[in-house]
Amino acid sequence: MKLKVKDMNIGTGGPLVVIINHKDAKLFDLHNGNRIELSIGRKKVIVVIDISVRGGFISQGKIGLFDDVMKRLNTKNGQEVKISIVNHPESLSYIKRKMDGYKLSKKEINQIVSDIVSNKLTEFEIAFFVAASYMNPLDENETLALTKAMVNSGKKLVLNKKIIMDKHCIGGVAGNRTTMIVVPIVAAAGLTIPKTSSRSITSPAGTSDTVEVLCNVCFDQAKIKKIVEKTNGCLIWGGSLNLAPADDIIIKIEHPFDLDARSQMLASILAKKASVNATDVLIDIPYGKGAKIEGKVKAEELKRDFEHMGKKLGINIKAIFTDGSQPIGYGFGPVLEAKDVLYVLRNDPMQPMDLRKKSIKLAGIMLEMGKKSKKGEGEKLAKKILDSGDAYKKFIDIIKAQGGKEVIPEDLKVGMHKKDIKAWKDGRISYVGNKEICRIARIAGAPVDKMAGVLLHKKKGTYVNKNEVVMTIYAESKDKLKFALDTYNKIKGILIK
Amino acid sequence: MKLKVKDMNIGTGGPLVVIINHKDAKLFDLHNGNRIELSIGRKKVIVVIDISVRGGFISQGKIGLFDDVMKRLNTKNGQEVKISIVNHPESLSYIKRKMDGYKLSKKEINQIVSDIVSNKLTEFEIAFFVAASYMNPLDENETLALTKAMVNSGKKLVLNKKIIMDKHCIGGVAGNRTTMIVVPIVAAAGLTIPKTSSRSITSPAGTSDTVEVLCNVCFDQAKIKKIVEKTNGCLIWGGSLNLAPADDIIIKIEHPFDLDARSQMLASILAKKASVNATDVLIDIPYGKGAKIEGKVKAEELKRDFEHMGKKLGINIKAIFTDGSQPIGYGFGPVLEAKDVLYVLRNDPMQPMDLRKKSIKLAGIMLEMGKKSKKGEGEKLAKKILDSGDAYKKFIDIIKAQGGKEVIPEDLKVGMHKKDIKAWKDGRISYVGNKEICRIARIAGAPVDKMAGVLLHKKKGTYVNKNEVVMTIYAESKDKLKFALDTYNKIKGILIK
Repeated sequence: MKLKVKDMNIGTGGPLVVIINHKDAKLFDLHNGNRIELSIGRKKVIVVIDISVRGGFISQGKIGLFDDVMKRLNTKNGQEVKISIVNHPESLSYIKRKMDGYKLSKKEINQIVSDIVSNKLTEFEIAFFVAASYMNPLDENETLALTKAMVNSGKKLVLNKKIIMDKHCIGGVAGNRTTMIVVPIVAAAGLTIPKTSSRSITSPAGTSDTVEVLCNVCFDQAKIKKIVEKTNGCLIWGGSLNLAPADDIIIKIEHPFDLDARSQMLASILAKKASVNATDVLIDIPYGKGAKIEGKVKAEELKRDFEHMGKKLGINIKAIFTDGSQPIGYGFGPVLEAKDVLYVLRNDPMQPMDLRKKSIKLAGIMLEMGKKSKKGEGEKLAKKILDSGDAYKKFIDIIKAQGGKEVIPEDLKVGMHKKDIKAWKDGRISYVGNKEICRIARIAGAPVDKMAGVLLHKKKGTYVNKNEVVMTIYAESKDKLKFALDTYNKIKGILIK
Repeated sequence: MKLKVKDMNIGTGGPLVVIINHKDAKLFDLHNGNRIELSIGRKKVIVVIDISVRGGFISQGKIGLFDDVMKRLNTKNGQEVKISIVNHPESLSYIKRKMDGYKLSKKEINQIVSDIVSNKLTEFEIAFFVAASYMNPLDENETLALTKAMVNSGKKLVLNKKIIMDKHCIGGVAGNRTTMIVVPIVAAAGLTIPKTSSRSITSPAGTSDTVEVLCNVCFDQAKIKKIVEKTNGCLIWGGSLNLAPADDIIIKIEHPFDLDARSQMLASILAKKASVNATDVLIDIPYGKGAKIEGKVKAEELKRDFEHMGKKLGINIKAIFTDGSQPIGYGFGPVLEAKDVLYVLRNDPMQPMDLRKKSIKLAGIMLEMGKKSKKGEGEKLAKKILDSGDAYKKFIDIIKAQGGKEVIPEDLKVGMHKKDIKAWKDGRISYVGNKEICRIARIAGAPVDKMAGVLLHKKKGTYVNKNEVVMTIYAESKDKLKFALDTYNKIKGILIK
């Protein structure tokens, strides 16, 4: 059966949807929510059906395609598209088995990942897989199989280098933008570091959201290769590369619940690293009260898991513990965090010392892993590269290669609606909460509103006088500032003792 | 913020979707997949956003509404609709708690159900709740709370009667269309039985799919009251009444996995019964090899749960065990099952005796529960009502009240593409599988293709000669007949010894 394309001029960003006339639906026995395969020549895509009931809109013989589908089929108005029925995906029964507590085989996991990527499973069907592997955690073999399946589900970045460095932070600490400082240090030392990052999931800004303040983060394979060949590094958004796409879909589904199934987190992170053919990877595990990982025991388990899985995958992985008990830097939100990063790279007096120190520490370890310095001397080298301005120069090279230009931090504009929060008494700041700061900054509009967020004026341990400003909330709209203030009044996030 | 309605003339049947121009999206900081509340006067509805990226389609200031949303707001082209942002639903954190193994409070369950019904949760977010209560089953208090929340989430059918009878079968047995025989018997005896049924979930036909062969099954409250006042009974599709709508959404999500979380099943069934204010309910629990419940122990647990929950809800519930080891009747698929029902009601020689006997047994118990006969004499009365033709007359009254007319079973047309399956040797039929027959009938097109399905010519235990026809597959298209045959060749479903 064939239908003629009608370009609907609508982007969905979600599941791939097409619209057909109710008469064609009846003819082909298709129903709302059914999946069909469209093909034009060798281009194929699986889509969900929506039926135009009253018919005035999509006439018989036509099929309305949304932007994503138009693009995948590379088609235009009036072209003929072939339609075939998609069978009940096999992987549903494997997902059910996982819910029932059974272990999944490599073959079963491959099928699940393949059905996710080819759009055969609906979002809610995938949600069952995510829930099942959260509640009945994947064991070592399953995690390994999931990692490999994810890697194979997407493209790989192939660079002709013997050593490829990478780093990852498991997250949960607001303002932790070390990547934007570590990458230029490591690249300036002559190591290759094709860093892909994510956008924010639950924080006020992910690395990509922050880099995007200064330059583009979306590039195709060919362009990324050029950037890395030129500068040794890059700071791009992983999503643009189609590395391990199954992982992106899973992350999107976990998002509303803030889920972090350990096995899925391992597979997710390692798949991204394996996709860029990383040989040496540093994993930053911040822990402490209010962080994603609160206790030492859990942090140690995670370290063991990472290093063990690394061996299985043939990647040299080193996992370290850092302080996750309070936010890092002063700014929280894309622009505010970009300012902090620039201050550190420029060795500006405004620089947050915690961000500087942590970046030097991480870069130091990576320089040792990449054999650019002797054991125990990495930090010294990292500090030298940072203080000499070489890291800043390298950073500007990368930004320019990614289509940006040099800006001084003072020129970055923040939200025009703002509210200062003042100390309500004299005393020492005894607590600054990651989760609370995140929540206030997000409600103020970050990361979508790049200029929104929270600026801390005082860090934990500082003495403040009554009425001194401890924090400023920035927003791009009056309403959002009000919401953020309401949230601050409810949850505070700062304690003075 | 306000936008003008543009009628899109599209039915989605799924989540409620609207389309806005990309410039408005930017203005209001809205993104694909965000939820917003639309309101016109006091009519409100929560919808998911789709963004028209290139803008040619939905111009700025307009909002494209799909059929369901048009209807809920009772609006038309050009009317102004108010838009407000919806916050992160509270219930997400409760669902997470359930995944983590905690018990949910009444308040938390109420919130989840209310967020489901008001469209605040996406399908995949609801899937997490379903998975969590499948993997960490709800306890008695949670189940009770879920039942009550579901009842309160929808409309109730209020009939001015002291005794209101109802029945339910937990399913899993193909062809088990007793409801269409029991309801007229019970109604003919003078009892009130406002029976709502479901459409097929995993079987070749649900009661509503089969009734629909003969008359309408969708009516509003007022019309149903009239039907019941006139005939004492009805045979309608529960979905049309908006009873416990949260349940319908959950069932739809469970469907691809064939999930039957016990606690959710209890809540689901009891909510429907409580919504029609049933006072006396008979639950049919078929068990046996190949049925939904295979073992006696599980069947007994379920009986205890039902009767116990009934007490808690103030409903007199009696649960009985029946044979679930083989399909009932000859036909499987809406039309084929309607024929079987008519044969029994008309006391025709073609009638399947197992369907007749089981219906008499169930109706007998209900007549005793409703005090229309002494203990132990219900079956006799049921048989009398059936054999006298009173049940058939009552059935025709109900069918007519629901907009149908009397038809003789021979006039009901079946699929024009058919294939006889012949005995491959002499012998006794030792097995007829519920699951296999279901699968073949569904692949042949049932229940969507009403005339498709399977007709058994020989029941278990019968002796057959080689080349005698044991089964016929009917389909409405050549392709589907071929698929069904392929399936038959793989899974058989009949054994001859």
